[in-house]
Amino acid sequence: MKVGVIGASGFTGGEVLRLLVKHPEAEVVIATSREYADEYVFRLHPNLRGATDLKFTPPDLKRITEACDCVFMATPHGASIKYTPQLLEVGLKVIDLSADFRLKNPEMYKYWYGWEHPRLDLLAEAVYGLPELHREEIKRARLIACPGCTATASILALAPVVKAGFADLDHIVVDVKIGSSGAGSAPNPSTHHAVRAGVVRPYAPAGHRHSAEIEQELGAVAGRELKVAMSAHAVDIVRGILSTGHVFTIRGVSTGELWKAYRSMYGSEPFVRIVKDKKGLYRLPDPKVVVGTNYCDVGFEIDERVGRVVAFAAIDNLVKGAAGQAVQCFNIMLGIDERTGLDYTGIHPA
Amino acid sequence: MKVGVIGASGFTGGEVLRLLVKHPEAEVVIATSREYADEYVFRLHPNLRGATDLKFTPPDLKRITEACDCVFMATPHGASIKYTPQLLEVGLKVIDLSADFRLKNPEMYKYWYGWEHPRLDLLAEAVYGLPELHREEIKRARLIACPGCTATASILALAPVVKAGFADLDHIVVDVKIGSSGAGSAPNPSTHHAVRAGVVRPYAPAGHRHSAEIEQELGAVAGRELKVAMSAHAVDIVRGILSTGHVFTIRGVSTGELWKAYRSMYGSEPFVRIVKDKKGLYRLPDPKVVVGTNYCDVGFEIDERVGRVVAFAAIDNLVKGAAGQAVQCFNIMLGIDERTGLDYTGIHPA
Amino acid sequence: MKVGVIGASGFTGGEVLRLLVKHPEAEVVIATSREYADEYVFRLHPNLRGATDLKFTPPDLKRITEACDCVFMATPHGASIKYTPQLLEVGLKVIDLSADFRLKNPEMYKYWYGWEHPRLDLLAEAVYGLPELHREEIKRARLIACPGCTATASILALAPVVKAGFADLDHIVVDVKIGSSGAGSAPNPSTHHAVRAGVVRPYAPAGHRHSAEIEQELGAVAGRELKVAMSAHAVDIVRGILSTGHVFTIRGVSTGELWKAYRSMYGSEPFVRIVKDKKGLYRLPDPKVVVGTNYCDVGFEIDERVGRVVAFAAIDNLVKGAAGQAVQCFNIMLGIDERTGLDYTGIHPA
Amino acid sequence: MKVGVIGASGFTGGEVLRLLVKHPEAEVVIATSREYADEYVFRLHPNLRGATDLKFTPPDLKRITEACDCVFMATPHGASIKYTPQLLEVGLKVIDLSADFRLKNPEMYKYWYGWEHPRLDLLAEAVYGLPELHREEIKRARLIACPGCTATASILALAPVVKAGFADLDHIVVDVKIGSSGAGSAPNPSTHHAVRAGVVRPYAPAGHRHSAEIEQELGAVAGRELKVAMSAHAVDIVRGILSTGHVFTIRGVSTGELWKAYRSMYGSEPFVRIVKDKKGLYRLPDPKVVVGTNYCDVGFEIDERVGRVVAFAAIDNLVKGAAGQAVQCFNIMLGIDERTGLDYTGIHPA
Repeated sequence: MKVGVIGASGFTGGEVLRLLVKHPEAEVVIATSREYADEYVFRLHPNLRGATDLKFTPPDLKRITEACDCVFMATPHGASIKYTPQLLEVGLKVIDLSADFRLKNPEMYKYWYGWEHPRLDLLAEAVYGLPELHREEIKRARLIACPGCTATASILALAPVVKAGFADLDHIVVDVKIGSSGAGSAPNPSTHHAVRAGVVRPYAPAGHRHSAEIEQELGAVAGRELKVAMSAHAVDIVRGILSTGHVFTIRGVSTGELWKAYRSMYGSEPFVRIVKDKKGLYRLPDPKVVVGTNYCDVGFEIDERVGRVVAFAAIDNLVKGAAGQAVQCFNIMLGIDERTGLDYTGIHPA
Repeated sequence: MKVGVIGASGFTGGEVLRLLVKHPEAEVVIATSREYADEYVFRLHPNLRGATDLKFTPPDLKRITEACDCVFMATPHGASIKYTPQLLEVGLKVIDLSADFRLKNPEMYKYWYGWEHPRLDLLAEAVYGLPELHREEIKRARLIACPGCTATASILALAPVVKAGFADLDHIVVDVKIGSSGAGSAPNPSTHHAVRAGVVRPYAPAGHRHSAEIEQELGAVAGRELKVAMSAHAVDIVRGILSTGHVFTIRGVSTGELWKAYRSMYGSEPFVRIVKDKKGLYRLPDPKVVVGTNYCDVGFEIDERVGRVVAFAAIDNLVKGAAGQAVQCFNIMLGIDERTGLDYTGIHPA
Repeated sequence: MKVGVIGASGFTGGEVLRLLVKHPEAEVVIATSREYADEYVFRLHPNLRGATDLKFTPPDLKRITEACDCVFMATPHGASIKYTPQLLEVGLKVIDLSADFRLKNPEMYKYWYGWEHPRLDLLAEAVYGLPELHREEIKRARLIACPGCTATASILALAPVVKAGFADLDHIVVDVKIGSSGAGSAPNPSTHHAVRAGVVRPYAPAGHRHSAEIEQELGAVAGRELKVAMSAHAVDIVRGILSTGHVFTIRGVSTGELWKAYRSMYGSEPFVRIVKDKKGLYRLPDPKVVVGTNYCDVGFEIDERVGRVVAFAAIDNLVKGAAGQAVQCFNIMLGIDERTGLDYTGIHPA
Repeated sequence: MKVGVIGASGFTGGEVLRLLVKHPEAEVVIATSREYADEYVFRLHPNLRGATDLKFTPPDLKRITEACDCVFMATPHGASIKYTPQLLEVGLKVIDLSADFRLKNPEMYKYWYGWEHPRLDLLAEAVYGLPELHREEIKRARLIACPGCTATASILALAPVVKAGFADLDHIVVDVKIGSSGAGSAPNPSTHHAVRAGVVRPYAPAGHRHSAEIEQELGAVAGRELKVAMSAHAVDIVRGILSTGHVFTIRGVSTGELWKAYRSMYGSEPFVRIVKDKKGLYRLPDPKVVVGTNYCDVGFEIDERVGRVVAFAAIDNLVKGAAGQAVQCFNIMLGIDERTGLDYTGIHPA
C-alpha cells in the first residue's frame, strides 16, 4: 500500500518513517516537510541513513492524493483538520496522529483547545485509535484519531481497574512522567540540554489536554462521566512515559481480582504485557524497558493500608504513544497481522 | 565545637563532612568508617581533596566520647540505637540522620521497621529535626532525629494546605521522584549505571517507610490522624527529590488563600523558597535548581476543574533531605545564625 | 541451527539472546548461568519478556554438546579456553566473544593477560571475527574469536588510512569514549549510578588490552609492526563507543583520496556506513545514532594545518562491538545473508 | 568595588553573577541584557532566587561608566571590542570573558576569526587571564582577556610537560570532551535535549579556535612556535571539560620527573590540584568532581610502551573555564586573597 507521511521532519514523523520503510506492506512514497523540502530524509533522521533515499517534499494536496492510498498525519494540532477532509473525500484513508479528531464531544474542543470544531460529521466518524479498546471499529475505519501519548499510557493503566468496578471514580489521580522527545523537535529555551537535563520539572500540573481523552475513554469504560486529577512531569529521559494512576478503591480488592481484571482485558493483546513480578529488578513497568518498542507494559500494586490501587503503564511515547500505535492501527485496517513491522523486542540495558 | 561523624564513608556522611569542614563553628575531629579505616577521607569523597587531611578511623565509643562534643550519626537504620544512648549519657549531643528516633509512636516501629524500640524514653525525648515545624524544640534538644529525605519534601509541600484546613484528609496522594544517591553508596545490581540510567522505576509503590513520618507530622499539623497514599519512583538524576502532593480540597480554594497559607508558614524561613511564578521557565519547584543546596523550594497549583491542589516541594536529598538539615539543626542548637555554613546558592544550569 | 549461549546472564549474553530469539535460522536451546540457574531469562533481560520462555541452566558440557550445533561463548576472559577445545572436539562450532583466542602471537598473552596460552594450535586456527577484514576466513572457520569492542571501532576507523599508506605509523593516537555497559553487569563501586553518572573518567589511560588487537590487525593491514597510543574514557552513556583516531600523515592528503580509501574498503559492507556530510547535525559518526544496531559508522576529517587525519568510528559496544558482530559471523559461517536478524535501523532520537 | 556584568542573561553571565552576589568585595550594580531588560535576574538564573533582587537593564554605556568601577564582559565574541575601549578610557577596569583580546598576534584574528583587529594597542596591553601563567601581569592589568574554556584545561594539562622539555612538540594531540553548557544558552536544533542527550559527538574535529590560544601559551612556555592537533567532542554532561593531552616524549620520562614538573608549576596554586593516585576510584582528573568549583584538577599517566605522556585536566567550563577564573583575576587585581568568593568544595556525588 502506498503511504504518505505528512509532517515527516519531526520526531513523530521520523518514527513513522522508521517503522514504514521496513514494513512489508507499506511503500512510503511521500514524506513532506516545508522547512526541509528537497533534503534527504536521513539528514534529519540519521538512523535512516542507508535505509532510504527518500527526500522531503513540500506538502502538496494534489500530489499526495495522486500518489497515496493512506496518509499518516504527523502534523501539529490544527493542521490535520485542513487536509484530512479533502483526503477522505478522494478515498484515501487517514491515520491522524494529532488531536484534531480525538474528542467525541465538540464542546471539549472549545474547552481544551479553544477551538470550534468545523466538522462534526468527521468527529463522529473518527475512531479513537487505541486497539485495546476499539479494535473492531478500527478494522472498518477510514479515519483514525490516534491517542495522545500520555493518554495511551494512562488509559491502559487504569481501564482494567475502572472496568472491574473497583475504583472510587471521584478520586482518580494520574501522575505522569515523560521524556524530552514529548516536547517535539522544535528547539526552545526549555528544551535546551543544559536546562532540560536533570530536571524533575512539573509541567502541566493541572489542565493537561490529554485529560480530555482519558476522561472520555475511561468514562466510556465506567459507563458514567468521570474526571481525572492529572499532573505531568518532565524527567531526564529522551523517550518514555510512566503513568502512575493512584486509585482509591470502593472496597478491599485482592491481588487475584486485579490479576483477573488485567488478564481479562489484555490477556491476548499482542502489545500489552502485564508486569507484576514477585522478584527480580523489573517487577513493575518502567519505560526504560520498552524504549523503541510498541509495547505497553502495565502493572499494579495494592496499598491495603490506604485502600488504594497504584496502576502503572510504561510506553515509548514515540512508538506505542504515537507512530507504533498508528502502524498497529494501519495493520488492523489492512487486515494483516497486527504485529507486522512492530514485532521486535527492546534492548537491555537501554 | 568538636564534632564526630559516625558512618562517614557513605553519601550522607560525606555530605556532612563537606558542610562541616568549612563550618566556622565546627571542627571535625573524627570520621568513622569500619571498611575504610586509615584511608584518607578524600579517597572516598574526592570533592574534599585539598580541603581536609582527615582519615577515617574505626568507630570507637571511647574515642568518640573523649574527643567530641556533638556527634552526627550517618549510619544505617538500626545502628544509631546502639551508640546514641551511651553518647547522650556522657553528655554529648547527638544529631541522628537515621530513622531510629523519628517516630513518636513505638507501635509504628513494629509496623514499619519490624522492630521493638528499646528506649521509649529517648523516643519521647528526641526532637524531629524539621526546623520549619520544630525550631523551638530543636533549640533545647540534645537528641535530634533528622527527617527522612522524602518525608522532608512531602511534609513541607503539604503542611500549609493541611494547616489551612483545605485538604480532604482522606484522599492525600504523595507521588515522589528521587535520584540514585537516595539508594546509598553500596553497589548492587539495581544501582548499576547501565541498569539505573534512564529509568522511571516504580520503587516502593506502597508501604514506603517515610509514610509513617509524613503521617505523624501532617497529622500533628491537622490535629487528627491521617494517612497518605504514597508512591516513590526512581528517576535519572543523582541528587534530588520532587514530591508532588495531590490534595483533593473540601471546598474551592483561591490562589490568594494558598499564597497566604504558604507565606504564613514559610515567609521568614531561611531555607524555604515559595516558587510559583506566572512566567519564565522556572515557575514551580524543580530539584535541579536546588542541587547542592539546603533550600526546599515549595509551590502549588490549583486544579479547579477537579477540586484539587497540587503541592510541590523540591530538595537535594543529601542536603535539605539529610546533611544540610542536620547542620541547620546543629546551628539552631548552638544558637548561631541558622544559615552558618549553608548560605550559598546552587548553580545554574546544574 | 541449534545454538547455545554460555554466560547468558551478562549484558553481552543477553544481547546474543536478544538477537537469536528472533533469528530465523537459529534456535536457542541452551542459555547458561550458574548464578541464575532455573530462573527465567526475562527476569534478567526484561526486554525479552514475552519473547522467550527460556530458563537459564547451569553450564554442563555434556548437555551443551548433545543439544547444540554452535555455541556462543559470552564468558569472562579465561573461561572460554576451558570449554572451547572440548566443544570443537565433538564437532561444534564456537563463536567466542571473549579474548581467549584473539591474539595470534602467544607472547602477547603473556604481556597483556599475564597468561601462558595452552593451545597454540587453536590460537593459530581461530579466525579474528571482524568480517570487514576476514570475511573469507570466517566462512570456513569453526572457531571465531570476536574482536573486543574498542578494537572493533578503532580498527574500522583507522584501517583505510593505514591501508592507503597515508599514516605516520609511529604517531597514532586512539582516544576512546565508552559507555557503562562496557564494564559488564557485575555491580561495583565504580559503576554505581550516582558515582558513574556525569563522568568523563580516564579509564585505562595507557595499557588498554585491546591495544594488542588493534596493533595486530592494523599491523597486518600496514604490512609492518606498529604501536598505537591508546587511552580510554568512560562517558555518561549506557551503550556506545566513539573511537577517535588521531593520525599524523606522511604527506598532505586530500578529501577525495580519503573518500576513496574508505569507499574502497567499506563501499559494499552491509554494516559500515561512511558518515561525512557537509551539512546537517549528523555530519560525523556518533554512537547515539547506532545504539541498538549492528552498524559501525565511520568518518574522517582532515586537519591540514597540522598534517593530521582525524578518523572516527561509532558503534554500539554490545552489538557491533560484541553480540551483533558474533551473529554477523554466524550468518557468514552459515552461508546465509549476512544481515539476517540484524537488518533493522536504530531509533532517533535515542 | 562596584561591578557591572555585561551580557548577564547567558550561562557565563549568570555564573559571574552567582559568584559576585556573594563576593564580599564586590557589589553588582548593573547586569545587562537587551532581551530580558526589566526582568528579575532570578527569572533567568533560578538559582539566584532569594539571593538578589537585581533586574536586568539594557546595556547603556553612560550608565555603566557612571555606576561601575569594573566591568565583566560576558558577551559573544565581537561585542567586547565595541565597549571595552570606551570603558577603559574613562578609567574602568575590564575583565573580558570573550575572545576579543586573547590573541597577541593580530594575524591570528584574521586566520581564526576572519577579523581584522582594530585596536592593536589594547591587544598588546591585554593580559591573558590565566593566573597560573600570568599572575604578576594580572596584578597590574586594567584589561584582562580571560582564556577560553577548553584552552584553560588544555594549557594547564600540558604546560608542565612542555616546560620540562619532555615533549615532542611536533606531535601533540589534544582531545577535548565538553558539556552542553559550553554551547551557550541560545537554543538551537543541536542543543535540543532529545538530540543532545547521550551523544559522543565530534564537534570541531579540526580547527577549533581555542587552538590559537593553546599554541600561543604553550609556545611561550616552550620558547618556540608549536602546533596542537586538537579535536573536541560533545558529551552528555551539562558542565565540565576533560582535556586529554597525548604527548609523545623525546626520551623516557619517569613518574618522579613528571611529579616534579607538575609540583614545581602548581605546588602552591590555590585552584590547581594534582590528581594522580595509586588507588581508589578517583585516581585521575574527572570533571564530575569539580562541577561548580574553580578547581582545575590535573594529572598524568606514562605510557612507556609507546613513549607517551597522557596529561589530563578537568574543569567546570563555566567556572575555572570562565566566570570563576574571571573572579580569580578580579581578586588578584584587587590585591585580596585570590580565593575570595571561590573557596568552596564541590559536591560528591554530583
